[in-house]
Amino acid sequence: MLRRFFPPLQWLPAYRRDTLRGDLSAGLTVGVMLIPQGMAYALIAGLPPIYGLYASLVPLVIYALLGTSRQLAVGPVAMVSLLVAAGVAPLAEGDPGQYVTLALLLAFMVGVIQLGLGLLRFGFLVNFLSHPVLTGFTAAAALIIGLSQLKHLLGIPLPRSNHIHEILWSAVQQVGAVQVPTLLIGLGGIVVLVGLKRWKKTAPGALVLVVLGTLVVSLGDLEAAGVAVVGEVPRGLPVPTLLSLDLGLMQALLPIALTIALVGFMESIAVAKVYAARNRYEVDANQELIGLGLANVAGSFFQAYPTTGGFSRTAVNAQAGANTTVASLISAGVIGLTLLLLTGLFHDLPNAVLAAIVLVAVAGLIDWKEIRFLWQVDRKDFALFLLTFVATLGLGIEEGILVGVVASVALVVYQSAKPHTAVMGRLPGTDTYRNVVRHPQAQMPPGVAVLRMDASLYFANAAHFQEVVRATVQDETLQAVVLDAYPINQIDATGVHALKRICEDLKAQGIDFYIAGAKGPVLDRLYRAGMRETVGNTCFYHTVHEAIVQRDEVRPSMLQNTRFVHLVPA
Amino acid sequence: MLRRFFPPLQWLPAYRRDTLRGDLSAGLTVGVMLIPQGMAYALIAGLPPIYGLYASLVPLVIYALLGTSRQLAVGPVAMVSLLVAAGVAPLAEGDPGQYVTLALLLAFMVGVIQLGLGLLRFGFLVNFLSHPVLTGFTAAAALIIGLSQLKHLLGIPLPRSNHIHEILWSAVQQVGAVQVPTLLIGLGGIVVLVGLKRWKKTAPGALVLVVLGTLVVSLGDLEAAGVAVVGEVPRGLPVPTLLSLDLGLMQALLPIALTIALVGFMESIAVAKVYAARNRYEVDANQELIGLGLANVAGSFFQAYPTTGGFSRTAVNAQAGANTTVASLISAGVIGLTLLLLTGLFHDLPNAVLAAIVLVAVAGLIDWKEIRFLWQVDRKDFALFLLTFVATLGLGIEEGILVGVVASVALVVYQSAKPHTAVMGRLPGTDTYRNVVRHPQAQMPPGVAVLRMDASLYFANAAHFQEVVRATVQDETLQAVVLDAYPINQIDATGVHALKRICEDLKAQGIDFYIAGAKGPVLDRLYRAGMRETVGNTCFYHTVHEAIVQRDEVRPSMLQNTRFVHLVPA
Repeated sequence: MLRRFFPPLQWLPAYRRDTLRGDLSAGLTVGVMLIPQGMAYALIAGLPPIYGLYASLVPLVIYALLGTSRQLAVGPVAMVSLLVAAGVAPLAEGDPGQYVTLALLLAFMVGVIQLGLGLLRFGFLVNFLSHPVLTGFTAAAALIIGLSQLKHLLGIPLPRSNHIHEILWSAVQQVGAVQVPTLLIGLGGIVVLVGLKRWKKTAPGALVLVVLGTLVVSLGDLEAAGVAVVGEVPRGLPVPTLLSLDLGLMQALLPIALTIALVGFMESIAVAKVYAARNRYEVDANQELIGLGLANVAGSFFQAYPTTGGFSRTAVNAQAGANTTVASLISAGVIGLTLLLLTGLFHDLPNAVLAAIVLVAVAGLIDWKEIRFLWQVDRKDFALFLLTFVATLGLGIEEGILVGVVASVALVVYQSAKPHTAVMGRLPGTDTYRNVVRHPQAQMPPGVAVLRMDASLYFANAAHFQEVVRATVQDETLQAVVLDAYPINQIDATGVHALKRICEDLKAQGIDFYIAGAKGPVLDRLYRAGMRETVGNTCFYHTVHEAIVQRDEVRPSMLQNTRFVHLVPA
Repeated sequence: MLRRFFPPLQWLPAYRRDTLRGDLSAGLTVGVMLIPQGMAYALIAGLPPIYGLYASLVPLVIYALLGTSRQLAVGPVAMVSLLVAAGVAPLAEGDPGQYVTLALLLAFMVGVIQLGLGLLRFGFLVNFLSHPVLTGFTAAAALIIGLSQLKHLLGIPLPRSNHIHEILWSAVQQVGAVQVPTLLIGLGGIVVLVGLKRWKKTAPGALVLVVLGTLVVSLGDLEAAGVAVVGEVPRGLPVPTLLSLDLGLMQALLPIALTIALVGFMESIAVAKVYAARNRYEVDANQELIGLGLANVAGSFFQAYPTTGGFSRTAVNAQAGANTTVASLISAGVIGLTLLLLTGLFHDLPNAVLAAIVLVAVAGLIDWKEIRFLWQVDRKDFALFLLTFVATLGLGIEEGILVGVVASVALVVYQSAKPHTAVMGRLPGTDTYRNVVRHPQAQMPPGVAVLRMDASLYFANAAHFQEVVRATVQDETLQAVVLDAYPINQIDATGVHALKRICEDLKAQGIDFYIAGAKGPVLDRLYRAGMRETVGNTCFYHTVHEAIVQRDEVRPSMLQNTRFVHLVPA
């Protein structure tokens, strides 16, 4: 019990010096990576860069104590930062103090929602974000994030907007006002980052760029030339603050808080599962919600805006040898020391360098491989991807996800409303029955139609099912229908009615009806509905072949080889 | 083509004197039945009784020309009348003239919606009203309709409300004001109707009661004693009127118009299908929508409020021998003659008699047999019934249906998110593999786990599926996993990813992975996704048994008896 709520108790007894060595290396690497990344992501969120460091402190410590993943690197991430900006900017009305207050209130709400979902064991909700929806949403978000950084790259004011054309048009109009030194630093930064990454995957590119950029601005006195810099950064650890819980503001923030709670958890659990499988341990979705939730709640009292487990940093963490969440504690230590000792060094860091870090990071969010995969494997899923992408750009961040989720559920129901059906024949030399259209060599037993519908039998397709059977029995010479019921995964009351009605109709026409391969849960329901009385007790078989052999008087010998096993309803 | 849009062309060439004889008998019977029923249902709708007769004229003629059902009796029905009252009353603000205008506008809108759905071939939408939702909604509507007639039965004014307790409390408060003669006529009417029905099912109870009630009031001069009567009824056919299409009113009526369009069509198509199956012809859902839609549009220009095909009258029509929609033309003729010649006779008809007719009719709408069936067969469906019933009473008519439909779709998705799974073994003496929990005699092949998940593999359950497989392979001695993929009816991109991931995980652990029984559409998708490269081309089998025999080196002889057929993707 205690081990479930404090997962570190599971690995702590086996903690050795070797374990620490890996954790130390990983913790230092991620900590150093967090300094520029945190500040850059704070810019996406529309917050002063220092808040990216604040968000990299307390949440890491809390997750280290409560999380079930041993490699997950919690902290500010690009997607959640974008969602924070989308939700907070319209409410802050240009007041920077209010902006910070709202961002922290949002972290508190996200934490409470995740905690609640975890305690209620609602972790499964996250499964409703399908691959195509996530891919489309992420690609659109990457575009929006990228464009939000254009102003830092060009050194001109641009409107904060979801509408690409507004931003681009505004940029074109101000093309004469572009600050060339800022642009050069930004483009140079991108070249350095991409170059370093090509040269060596584990190179601490962002850190190198931060040092280079700061030096260039300092030595060239470029701040005087108009290059925007991070400026005065307050020294010291974040001051604990009590949030005032304004109900009106909380109501206004609720939709975005729900979105961040789910999207943030989604990103986190996806990467956590990858490394859990790779290192042979289990992550518990509900405990993860509890851990991330409490990290956000506790963080919100220490100036941290919403955080979650990130893809790229977790990869670095694992690669650098993280064995347990002790690595996270060490990363938090690096950030803590930075806040206490090094903030003075950030004064001359140009915003264009942070923008370059963001742009290189989000370019990787557009998953071209997955988009090609969707196109090849499933055009409907590709359409879902496209719909979510367009809806996110056109309607907004939360609306895009909502449209995607509703459309994917609707598509599933729609597909099962008119499912694939097949008339089956026996594959020569086997007891297997397959679709005669796909297997022209399959032999249809004379006078018997073997039918299959590839769906659960329920209200959405019960009428369609009846029509399929009625269309099949137009054949005058038909003596029997065998329904292959093995693909019927669920049956509801409407489905049971349809099956009974079909059976009565066939009886009235003098056609026998056999149900083959119905599975336990379906059989239970059919028996309770009195189906044995309607079809006849002897009309249930394990397989299509059994049903056909049983009624085939010409070859009774095969029947003797088959032992009919009584089906036991639970 | 012409035959599709004018279904009578299908039976007209074979029309004989015999056909006419049945149609004549049925048409006269239903016409006579329509006179009291139409007036009673108009009362439910909150309209003067004569509008029940107007609604029994033009719509019948139009449906006779365009409908695909040959027995369906179109006209005013109880459920649609209730929906009209629920939608129109709040907008009419007590103005009787406006009330009529709104009811006719509603008929026009219902017709346009049904016509549109039919032309767009959206007839399948009606399948989303499942049995439990319909049962719950109908039972609640019956209660509401019954209570709406209480004022006519007691002769006291009662509030029009969905809230049962308000109506009952108001009745209790006015118990001293109850008109005893009115109450006696109403109760007497109920006794006469139930008695006649018990005595003979086809007895024209309503007509007998109308004659009796009118005579009692006339001879006893009970109108002077305060018994409310139908009063002056205008003579003559309905005057054609052009509707003024007020956009504001149409917007306000839209939700109820959508509800009536779907619920009305649902009632109609359900009964039409029963008699089509019984008489061996096809009804076309989309052409039915077109027929009913044009009947409502045309009717709205001739004073007809919304109509549809009704359960009880269709049963009488079929029983009385209706062969084609000529019967409907004859019924319309009866109503036309009544309007031209007999309206003077209705002056002394007491409202309490019409209320008695309604009460007996709606008592039959509560389907106790189905409610017991739901309880026995499927507790989840019973809960859906209860939810819809309570929501209809508590929230309102349209809201009740909406809650029911959304809940049934959510339930389907929720159930498929954590589907039933089974580890399977071979039934002794057969090649069939079944759940070892239900079939303790089933033998699990040594070193091989045979798994089955009873659901399509898609975004909602892909993560769950991975967990099930991972939990199974905890066994150290495991050499192979066989997935029985026959129950996988659909697979989407998220599902393909899950299957690939599982396969790679198992490979990394040195465990073989076989996919048995995957169906054509699923195989196509797996092949396109490169699954043959991931699993190995030789790991796809038709059946679980083939997969196991193939890898079992001890009994190669069985392999020779099985011919492996190459699967042909379409």
